[in-house]
Amino acid sequence: MNGIEGLTTTGSERAHENPWFSVWRDDFIRPDGKSGQYFFIDPGMDAVVVVAEDSNGDLILVGQTRYPVGSYLYEFPAGAVTVGEDPLSAAKRELREETGYTAGVWDLLGEYFTSSGLLKQRMHVFLARGLVSGESAPEEMEDILVKTISLENIRSLRVGSQLSNLLLVPIPFYERWKAGNNS
Amino acid sequence: MNGIEGLTTTGSERAHENPWFSVWRDDFIRPDGKSGQYFFIDPGMDAVVVVAEDSNGDLILVGQTRYPVGSYLYEFPAGAVTVGEDPLSAAKRELREETGYTAGVWDLLGEYFTSSGLLKQRMHVFLARGLVSGESAPEEMEDILVKTISLENIRSLRVGSQLSNLLLVPIPFYERWKAGNNS
Repeated sequence: MNGIEGLTTTGSERAHENPWFSVWRDDFIRPDGKSGQYFFIDPGMDAVVVVAEDSNGDLILVGQTRYPVGSYLYEFPAGAVTVGEDPLSAAKRELREETGYTAGVWDLLGEYFTSSGLLKQRMHVFLARGLVSGESAPEEMEDILVKTISLENIRSLRVGSQLSNLLLVPIPFYERWKAGNNS
Repeated sequence: MNGIEGLTTTGSERAHENPWFSVWRDDFIRPDGKSGQYFFIDPGMDAVVVVAEDSNGDLILVGQTRYPVGSYLYEFPAGAVTVGEDPLSAAKRELREETGYTAGVWDLLGEYFTSSGLLKQRMHVFLARGLVSGESAPEEMEDILVKTISLENIRSLRVGSQLSNLLLVPIPFYERWKAGNNS
């Protein structure tokens, strides 16, 4: 159930549940007295994405099969915050599991809603610096490839390739951080 | 069901259905012989988002309540491609319904997957120019506000406000187009 100014939620029912997300059907009454219904997806947890910058200023991307879209995609390392974790701990864990890297310096670059019309999910965008390489421990499809790439080449990767939210959104957060730290 | 190189999908079952999206449970076998299962959401259609640039070079944002995240958000006009529509027609319809504007010049700026780990959904990003104002016809929450804003102010709006995918992702597509058209 979501509290929204001007809307009165009169009912909230879990319409579907699986180990990764639930579908909720909420009934509400609007300020004008009309009733409405909204189906939305709640993974029950926030998510994190990590822009990891190495000592050359290059960035770490992870390639993996994304089943829902039927594609192998290169994206910034990302994943869900699990029970008992804070977002920073989840970011550290995801970076280590997917790439093997640990990082000495962490900054929160910002937050955004990943798909505001469908998903109750907030994404936390982290910057990781002071990288030390180690052993990765990939899960999921286990076809993960790790690629180190310059920001310039990421920009050109964005032309004519398979683009996803997890490649595109972290870039403006990182560019804003860079602009603030170079001026 | 999704065809992915190296994966054999052995079963696909609709686990939930509502008027806006379905949840599918697919079973598959990986190249190494291990079986797996994936729950994902399929709205059954693509989506569109429109960067509409007026004669001053300012951009049109739409504010509305986004029920899943419990927030009133300013975003670029966006919506689903409906049955029998192509993405460009959907972009024209969404811009007109949400803002009242029609546009004389349309360009496709690019495409991306909105949430590659959960949603089978591709977003088409359009640029609309040569705007003519008219009557809007908002649906959904009917608390839509239309705002004209400079690209510079959108960038500052991104600091300390409620940010969503539909505000953030179109900007780099638009900036790339601008860079290509000014050089």
